[in-house]
Amino acid sequence: MQTLNPDRLFPAEPTQRRIARDLYDSVKDMPIISPHGHVPIEWFATDYHFRNPTELFITPDHYVTRLMHAHGVELADLGVNQSDFSESQAREAFLTFGRCWRRYAGTPMRYWFEDSLERVFSITEPFGPDSAGRIYDQVNEMLASPEFSTRALVRRFNIESISTTDDPVDDLRLHDQVIADPDFGALLAPAFRPDRYLEPAAPEWASLVDALGRSAGVDASGYEGFHEAMRRRRRFFKEHGAVLSDHSHMDVSCERLADDEAARLFALAYAGSITAADAARLRAHLFNDQARLAQEDGLIMTLHPAVHRSYDQYGLETYGRDIGADIPARSEFTRALKPILNAYGNDSKFRLVLFTMDETVFSRSLAPLAGYYPSVFVGAPWWFLDQPEAMLRYFEDTVPICGFGKLSGFIDDTRALCSIPSRHDTNRRVTARYVSSLVADHRLSLDEGYEVMRGMIQTQPREVFRLNP
Amino acid sequence: MQTLNPDRLFPAEPTQRRIARDLYDSVKDMPIISPHGHVPIEWFATDYHFRNPTELFITPDHYVTRLMHAHGVELADLGVNQSDFSESQAREAFLTFGRCWRRYAGTPMRYWFEDSLERVFSITEPFGPDSAGRIYDQVNEMLASPEFSTRALVRRFNIESISTTDDPVDDLRLHDQVIADPDFGALLAPAFRPDRYLEPAAPEWASLVDALGRSAGVDASGYEGFHEAMRRRRRFFKEHGAVLSDHSHMDVSCERLADDEAARLFALAYAGSITAADAARLRAHLFNDQARLAQEDGLIMTLHPAVHRSYDQYGLETYGRDIGADIPARSEFTRALKPILNAYGNDSKFRLVLFTMDETVFSRSLAPLAGYYPSVFVGAPWWFLDQPEAMLRYFEDTVPICGFGKLSGFIDDTRALCSIPSRHDTNRRVTARYVSSLVADHRLSLDEGYEVMRGMIQTQPREVFRLNP
Amino acid sequence: MQTLNPDRLFPAEPTQRRIARDLYDSVKDMPIISPHGHVPIEWFATDYHFRNPTELFITPDHYVTRLMHAHGVELADLGVNQSDFSESQAREAFLTFGRCWRRYAGTPMRYWFEDSLERVFSITEPFGPDSAGRIYDQVNEMLASPEFSTRALVRRFNIESISTTDDPVDDLRLHDQVIADPDFGALLAPAFRPDRYLEPAAPEWASLVDALGRSAGVDASGYEGFHEAMRRRRRFFKEHGAVLSDHSHMDVSCERLADDEAARLFALAYAGSITAADAARLRAHLFNDQARLAQEDGLIMTLHPAVHRSYDQYGLETYGRDIGADIPARSEFTRALKPILNAYGNDSKFRLVLFTMDETVFSRSLAPLAGYYPSVFVGAPWWFLDQPEAMLRYFEDTVPICGFGKLSGFIDDTRALCSIPSRHDTNRRVTARYVSSLVADHRLSLDEGYEVMRGMIQTQPREVFRLNP
Repeated sequence: MQTLNPDRLFPAEPTQRRIARDLYDSVKDMPIISPHGHVPIEWFATDYHFRNPTELFITPDHYVTRLMHAHGVELADLGVNQSDFSESQAREAFLTFGRCWRRYAGTPMRYWFEDSLERVFSITEPFGPDSAGRIYDQVNEMLASPEFSTRALVRRFNIESISTTDDPVDDLRLHDQVIADPDFGALLAPAFRPDRYLEPAAPEWASLVDALGRSAGVDASGYEGFHEAMRRRRRFFKEHGAVLSDHSHMDVSCERLADDEAARLFALAYAGSITAADAARLRAHLFNDQARLAQEDGLIMTLHPAVHRSYDQYGLETYGRDIGADIPARSEFTRALKPILNAYGNDSKFRLVLFTMDETVFSRSLAPLAGYYPSVFVGAPWWFLDQPEAMLRYFEDTVPICGFGKLSGFIDDTRALCSIPSRHDTNRRVTARYVSSLVADHRLSLDEGYEVMRGMIQTQPREVFRLNP
Repeated sequence: MQTLNPDRLFPAEPTQRRIARDLYDSVKDMPIISPHGHVPIEWFATDYHFRNPTELFITPDHYVTRLMHAHGVELADLGVNQSDFSESQAREAFLTFGRCWRRYAGTPMRYWFEDSLERVFSITEPFGPDSAGRIYDQVNEMLASPEFSTRALVRRFNIESISTTDDPVDDLRLHDQVIADPDFGALLAPAFRPDRYLEPAAPEWASLVDALGRSAGVDASGYEGFHEAMRRRRRFFKEHGAVLSDHSHMDVSCERLADDEAARLFALAYAGSITAADAARLRAHLFNDQARLAQEDGLIMTLHPAVHRSYDQYGLETYGRDIGADIPARSEFTRALKPILNAYGNDSKFRLVLFTMDETVFSRSLAPLAGYYPSVFVGAPWWFLDQPEAMLRYFEDTVPICGFGKLSGFIDDTRALCSIPSRHDTNRRVTARYVSSLVADHRLSLDEGYEVMRGMIQTQPREVFRLNP
Repeated sequence: MQTLNPDRLFPAEPTQRRIARDLYDSVKDMPIISPHGHVPIEWFATDYHFRNPTELFITPDHYVTRLMHAHGVELADLGVNQSDFSESQAREAFLTFGRCWRRYAGTPMRYWFEDSLERVFSITEPFGPDSAGRIYDQVNEMLASPEFSTRALVRRFNIESISTTDDPVDDLRLHDQVIADPDFGALLAPAFRPDRYLEPAAPEWASLVDALGRSAGVDASGYEGFHEAMRRRRRFFKEHGAVLSDHSHMDVSCERLADDEAARLFALAYAGSITAADAARLRAHLFNDQARLAQEDGLIMTLHPAVHRSYDQYGLETYGRDIGADIPARSEFTRALKPILNAYGNDSKFRLVLFTMDETVFSRSLAPLAGYYPSVFVGAPWWFLDQPEAMLRYFEDTVPICGFGKLSGFIDDTRALCSIPSRHDTNRRVTARYVSSLVADHRLSLDEGYEVMRGMIQTQPREVFRLNP
């Protein structure tokens, strides 16, 4: 038997550890604010019950599956993209996870899993090859009870607000249903994710444009109509609770075209005869349009560019997207975002939250931009960087340049429901660790440290994302 | 009441903290050596009295103003570029600073300001929204006394040498006057900053060339004359105490052209009909010429390239340059500097000090270059990086590769006079912190630690910049 | 007198230090596994006796010589590339080293040298300008004894396996001789280093191709023959104990050409009339072929691209290659390696170990790739990064993303024989330091820490490089 150490993730030095513990204690029970995530709306709408521990912890979480794949496990054996994955296969996948467990030492996936096992399922037996079967059975039994339905977990996790990520043509009917239901405790927000509609080089683009037009009740087959359709769908999302639009292209170029040039390229693209270079120019213009619309409607833009999506062709063909085969790329924000920032950067209604997996831009680009422009905030460490070491580097790279007040606050960005409290708790512990270093070397008083903690965990995310509980 | 903790910025672990304290104590009272800065020569020449605390601490310091701007304060309300900023407006700006104070938590601007308040003005009341008015009044009263004139502060700050940054056509009359005055305690050096004269694409370039020619007494309208004018103005600066030339282009390309090609492009540029691409080639050549001249006259070259200057067009038009809207860019030194380094890199008379705000080049480029070439030194962390976290990263990135002996020593690079002792003290504390880590893990003896400290604070900057007190 | 502190390189905080010490103690006596290095095979074959301490410690070690050069010492005076370097010159070079000694504070060269002096030569007098002569004489005397021959040192250093780096046309006769000799205690492996044969733009390329063909007994003057020659030489190396091929081009582009296009460009290159652009395309294809062959024959590919080799033209002409004038370049792996990874990345027989001196790619590229692909491992910090600070950054950048199990284990990469145990010991101490941080903040139990240590020092390098002792 082991139990989670109450001082986990705190610094080793005793004086600083005491400070970190006090700082953490002051925020540890605050409700969870989650402005961006990927939990499927269907789970909330149906109060979904997970069928087994593998469906809860392994199959949908590419953080977990990619590392077993890296040690030679086939994704099929973990249930990825398997329409018919039996109970015995699920149990076998869990045993495989147990056998691979030592490979997770030092990773956040290990930390979150252990944390969830104890805090959600009260299991304190160490996980590993010997215990995986027993733990599977225990969790499996608990999952069947009403206390472990999706909504019960949302309540238990003390979630104040949560967001899904949605297609622009989504009718948001399920969102309306959940929002209207007093049984669902949290503030729910859809998020507007138009990426696919802004990539005119993709073969399916014209049909996406048509679908967008249909959903907006407008003929979108020309540039003007498309723009109007976007305007309407953004407003529709906003009326249904959205606070942000979410964007992830390879780069954030946003040079505008002349109006007639935009219309000309749009027509070429719609006809399927645009060149790659012109498609890139049109995409930059359409992305710029999103900023223009954001300045009108007040949806916050969150950007997390520069990923080689579905890098592994075999994986894509066999298992589809989002299997952990996305690899970050070098990113450039400053030069690329100049058209948008020069147009709207000083406008307090406009707001841009910049995320990255390229750590080199924190001190060189993002913090300097956020430290000048009222509209710019530096997003929390993203995806591969969502772990204690990278969080500490992030604070050290940004805070001295733009202060805590220009950071976004934590983003969990996950579909792994059970990991949400663990991820937020990790962030609270690591934030306390960083702030304790400023208190320990006498740059902040302890009282100021408490204020910074409250800001980072509660005030800041509410303000940055305009979430009013 | 609070007072500055004597152990501020030291590591938390008690044994290491004691070592850091001892190391710091051994250098804390050494005179300040400031080989590069931006205090206006007029202040020294006239023994300027600051009119109020806002003029001292806020308006001229874009480190301070940009962060308030990032939280929605108009720069006009802080006095930036306001020809007629009244006493009551100044007081209001200081109150605004007080209201924004909590936004500075974790930044060096906060640290320097608190440090200055106590060490220069003996104010120990915590600054903030409630105390800003009282503190304004106290500082204001003190500023009126002779003890707080510019020269009195220079004496009190124990400044051994200080530098201004000057235009090549400056007649250095004010410098001569200050140097000749026994009342001015420090060694004063102008610095040769020819950037504008090396950018042939700029619309004002031809008239700058004419002015340069006039100041040198030579017709500079052709390439040969221009080169001779540069040679003369550099010598003039050297004769008037300059030890370095200072350069900040977007990149450090320095490929030479054939002589006749240089002359041809120069003529095109002077006629205002050069293309952007050719202007870039000519600039590289003219920049190479600076190195050639440096090898003749022995002025040290300091380089800090790769900044998007005046990124915000609105800010530039409304408030001018240097308002905190400069954003660092990715930088590349190794490939770009090859022509200069292959020509003069092994020459002990030639000297190049390389600064950056792109931290990725410390371990990949600058330390390896400095660890091979006798002429190359790695400059101190620059501008946005002038803060404890980045200083520590800088030491960790460079020292293992090129040793302490190829670092430049600290550069304050500021026009904020009162922050000079605070910045140097920060550097001494953080240097002690880094060296204490080497002593604590038994890589250096304490005696060697003392020697390294003396080197970094005193011997090294004197030697690198050839400053003989 | 001083002696090496048993706690050197451990963290300062006492609790964490105790953990680090325990972790280190558990691996400190394990045999050395060295999958990649540069000790000349002649030394092993002849049981070479070093003529003097300068030949042992200074002349062949460009880590040591470059820093003296950076402080103005001519490489000739250190014996670099001097065919006739007398005993008195050698002694003088050692005294120069003593005078420069303080310049090495904070560098790994200092650490390794002190460590070697005490652990190999039992010298505890501090090295420096005053003691250099005495120490020279003591070491000199010892070197003459049989205990200090190359093979005696290999035995004493407890080396389990060691590798040389060899030209593809090497007949490996000396390797065979050493392997057959029961007197040589370690497993010896040659390594296949084909770089020069894959650069068709080089003037000597056609003659290299001829030599390769001769050694393979095949006409290599056409593409098919060349490919067959490569296949045979790789098999020859494998049959003689090689486990890996080693590659260091400026970039790792590997786009394949159509077969006839490859043949056409090969013919042009062989005739000496290929353009630079086509040579780059051909090189990418030939490099891709190495991966194709690796997938057949199972030699592991180790890659360490992106270095400006022999940056200093004067140094190259005067002293030749490998004098410490190689400067790292920015590197890009993800986009460049896509053709190879999409072809063989999921194949468990294929294996790629990626090294870099560009630290920005650890968290952005290498760890994400290794965290997905079974074939990819992240190589140990390379060359300039082979020091405690960079090692710690490496662990912090990679482990949270890909876990310990996708790291290569330590690589000493050196020709400085006496530094081998010091380098491995440094790695063991720093690995213990990193793992102790995970134990101290309760992310790993101490027992798991021991398991990780054993993995990193022993199991992992054996498995990754398929070395079976």
